[in-house]
Amino acid sequence: MPRITLPPKLPFKRVGIAGLGLIGGSLAKALIPFGGLELYVFDRDPKTVEAARKVRRFAAVTDQAETFIDWPLDLAYLCLPVRRNVELVNLMAKKGIDYPVTDAGSTKSPITAAASRAGLTFCGGHPISGREVSGYANSSADLIRGCLYILTPPEDGGPEVMDLTKKLKALHDLLGCRVRIMSAADHDRLYGLVSHLPFLTASALAGTALRLGGEDVLPWAGTGFKDTTRVGASAPAKWVEIAMENADNLVDDIGALMNLLGEIRRSLKTGDADELMNILGPISAFRQKLPKA
Amino acid sequence: MPRITLPPKLPFKRVGIAGLGLIGGSLAKALIPFGGLELYVFDRDPKTVEAARKVRRFAAVTDQAETFIDWPLDLAYLCLPVRRNVELVNLMAKKGIDYPVTDAGSTKSPITAAASRAGLTFCGGHPISGREVSGYANSSADLIRGCLYILTPPEDGGPEVMDLTKKLKALHDLLGCRVRIMSAADHDRLYGLVSHLPFLTASALAGTALRLGGEDVLPWAGTGFKDTTRVGASAPAKWVEIAMENADNLVDDIGALMNLLGEIRRSLKTGDADELMNILGPISAFRQKLPKA
Repeated sequence: MPRITLPPKLPFKRVGIAGLGLIGGSLAKALIPFGGLELYVFDRDPKTVEAARKVRRFAAVTDQAETFIDWPLDLAYLCLPVRRNVELVNLMAKKGIDYPVTDAGSTKSPITAAASRAGLTFCGGHPISGREVSGYANSSADLIRGCLYILTPPEDGGPEVMDLTKKLKALHDLLGCRVRIMSAADHDRLYGLVSHLPFLTASALAGTALRLGGEDVLPWAGTGFKDTTRVGASAPAKWVEIAMENADNLVDDIGALMNLLGEIRRSLKTGDADELMNILGPISAFRQKLPKA
Repeated sequence: MPRITLPPKLPFKRVGIAGLGLIGGSLAKALIPFGGLELYVFDRDPKTVEAARKVRRFAAVTDQAETFIDWPLDLAYLCLPVRRNVELVNLMAKKGIDYPVTDAGSTKSPITAAASRAGLTFCGGHPISGREVSGYANSSADLIRGCLYILTPPEDGGPEVMDLTKKLKALHDLLGCRVRIMSAADHDRLYGLVSHLPFLTASALAGTALRLGGEDVLPWAGTGFKDTTRVGASAPAKWVEIAMENADNLVDDIGALMNLLGEIRRSLKTGDADELMNILGPISAFRQKLPKA
């Protein structure tokens, strides 16, 4: 008789997803194939709510934050823009919820601090997975499956937080994510440098082309301009929130970038090719070490 | 009887290609399928010469610039790094050649000036087509076919230059390129902004990650860092030459980029989200207008 393979058991039964955008929608689509799971969905956008109501595997759908908060959840998974995640945490604290909370925002310190102030059982998360498009219509289970997933448990968390972190690791392991754990502060320094700064840099480069050349330059651009500015095409509202939440790190990062650009500019001004080579050589070698795919 | 389709007639018979790297090799591979063409190849690299000698469709192969120059060419097509193209032009002038010359370098003003000083019949060219790899081994006919191709005839050129420009346009039309014509000065301003500045910006961003985080940050990077820094992985020697040849434009471009980064940094320092949105909004809209593919 062939061996029976039972579906893996998820560590949560009733999961609430706040925000059915690119990340929340992708998470929902990745979770749906698991059996024995009830998904409770909140989104403020009428079109998204309409689309969500047609998904038979959602246990309930609402466009009201208060309704969402009152559901009998085992886990609330916040996938709203970072500022609205914090607002929802504050609302949850006021209502006195008893279930644990996680989020999928790109900055981790502000929401971790808000959850700590509110006394919630909280562990932040961040899927390293994004596209320059947004919204439920663009969401896909593949955006979550196999991605790097950072968990940032608060350093002063008690046994409930440890238990939540363990369960969140198990959940994302089942989703095929590569789960890593670090502090919220380390996360924000790291992703300031490798995610938020790249966005601002891509935008500043595209903005320079806009200021000095205008739209006439666009048909002439090759793959270099296209790739280097790609993330600059993203809807800026989300990124403005992220940048503001990580402003301290980004002020330092942009300062360092401006210093390096100043050095490159000086070598060009003085015609010092050796100096420019000394600057660019180690950078090229560094960039070539980036793991592929 | 079915209609006979004769192969299109190329406007040159004996074409010399100096430099069988990524661009020269791709050009050769794109030209080989055309009948009635003799390709004369020069490269200094022993391995490339060895590989080229095995290509039966090459009429002759040499590793000596003097030998190349003395061949009875209808066109010399210079595909060396930009500085060595200029050196070869100067050598051709000394030898007193009588055939016309074009090139495929990324900067157009210095070589156009050198050819003018030398009294050569010259029209510069630039295929908008590149990769972060280099060398004959990575070359491919597809890198030339269908690409945008800029021709930059000297503005003080006589009837020979007009004739050469017409023939070069016909040649690249046959290769499937979209040929456009502009002045060398306009080309260098434009491609400083949409090609050389993106390379320097991608490098400066990668360099900032190297300085502030070191190699430890690389495994954490997502697609944003990857795409925004991609061209920074290119071998820097080629780019140092290009940047030095276009230094005047790039000093201005980098200055404008640093100003814009300074504005972004100020909005973060003062916590002015509206100001950051005012900066990023129009840039995102601009970048979204970039033609796809």
